[in-house]
Amino acid sequence: MPRVSQERLDARRRQIVNAAARCFARNGFQATSMQDVLKEADLSAGAVYRYFTGKEELISAIVAEVIDEIRDAFQQAAAQRPLPSPEILIGRVIRLVLGKEPTLGVSDGSLYPRLMVQVWAETLRNPELRDVLHDGFAQVRRPWIEIVEAYQDAGMMRADVPALSVARTLIALAQGFVVQYALFGDVPVQVVELGLKALMSMEDPASRT
Amino acid sequence: MPRVSQERLDARRRQIVNAAARCFARNGFQATSMQDVLKEADLSAGAVYRYFTGKEELISAIVAEVIDEIRDAFQQAAAQRPLPSPEILIGRVIRLVLGKEPTLGVSDGSLYPRLMVQVWAETLRNPELRDVLHDGFAQVRRPWIEIVEAYQDAGMMRADVPALSVARTLIALAQGFVVQYALFGDVPVQVVELGLKALMSMEDPASRT
Repeated sequence: MPRVSQERLDARRRQIVNAAARCFARNGFQATSMQDVLKEADLSAGAVYRYFTGKEELISAIVAEVIDEIRDAFQQAAAQRPLPSPEILIGRVIRLVLGKEPTLGVSDGSLYPRLMVQVWAETLRNPELRDVLHDGFAQVRRPWIEIVEAYQDAGMMRADVPALSVARTLIALAQGFVVQYALFGDVPVQVVELGLKALMSMEDPASRT
Repeated sequence: MPRVSQERLDARRRQIVNAAARCFARNGFQATSMQDVLKEADLSAGAVYRYFTGKEELISAIVAEVIDEIRDAFQQAAAQRPLPSPEILIGRVIRLVLGKEPTLGVSDGSLYPRLMVQVWAETLRNPELRDVLHDGFAQVRRPWIEIVEAYQDAGMMRADVPALSVARTLIALAQGFVVQYALFGDVPVQVVELGLKALMSMEDPASRT
């Protein structure tokens, strides 16, 4: 039954990746040893090395997966119709990112946001992973720019600011919130939804003329 | 001349800290060895170990210094009077943070933002450093909450949103922008200033009733 066998292989691979991701989220990529991963996965070295040649391959797999998942979250949030207002868009993408947590298995709180910060730190020192991240970011920006252009076309937002600048600002807000979640623990997503609404209630200086 | 001697000691200590900070910004805390630091500082082991017992002490010193500097930048930006509008506040704090770059000595671009991301990653795995970060964040929030309260008292912003939520949102925006600067290189600060102004030009859903 080759199909069952493939499923078993996939499940075992997933078990290893999740265990490694939990280790990396807790202790960073560089301070985690393969021994730590074996212990967390409760597997022998032989079982793990059948899937990954070593820590570098495991790191590459996890970084690529996290970048994929974050990109998907940003794309999925931007695909909502009717056109979401900015605070709904931001709330949605953050909830999608935080919702990845259970995919890592047994968790000890804000594991996924912490993994995200560790992924950034790792990409900063690894040119190959940086290229993966740059590709992911390019794909995220496109749908977010389209949303901003839709605001502008509908006359909901001043149109004299490049849509890319607004898209980057919104993405920065989501990134910064996940950083706070990683660093300072469980923050209600409502904080940023309300915060953005309050900022939008202010008068744009340009309209004061 | 004990004064000169103290100055020399301080200058040497600074030389070591800056060299280590450059290494950590490029390669992260855990993948950097004391050998890397000695080479970057162009000093002997004896010269360095007179100031720091080892890498852990050097990491603690640098993490504490970066957290201090970021806290100062947020406090200094919030101390501007007359009351700055949000995009001016955000632009100012980001410029202050990016302006720390030359203090590290010869730089190869966005070294300080990269160091900031590495500091976050390191605090996530070190409970003592996490406490330092939490103290710093508590001190940053206070003046930013006061600014938001001033907006609300002046009738410039809806007052039914907790000032803390808005302060956290603004801080997240600055953090997220510095992340993008670290990950994707030199981004003009104008991007976020204009982006925030464009968001403020949108109508707050609450006012549509």
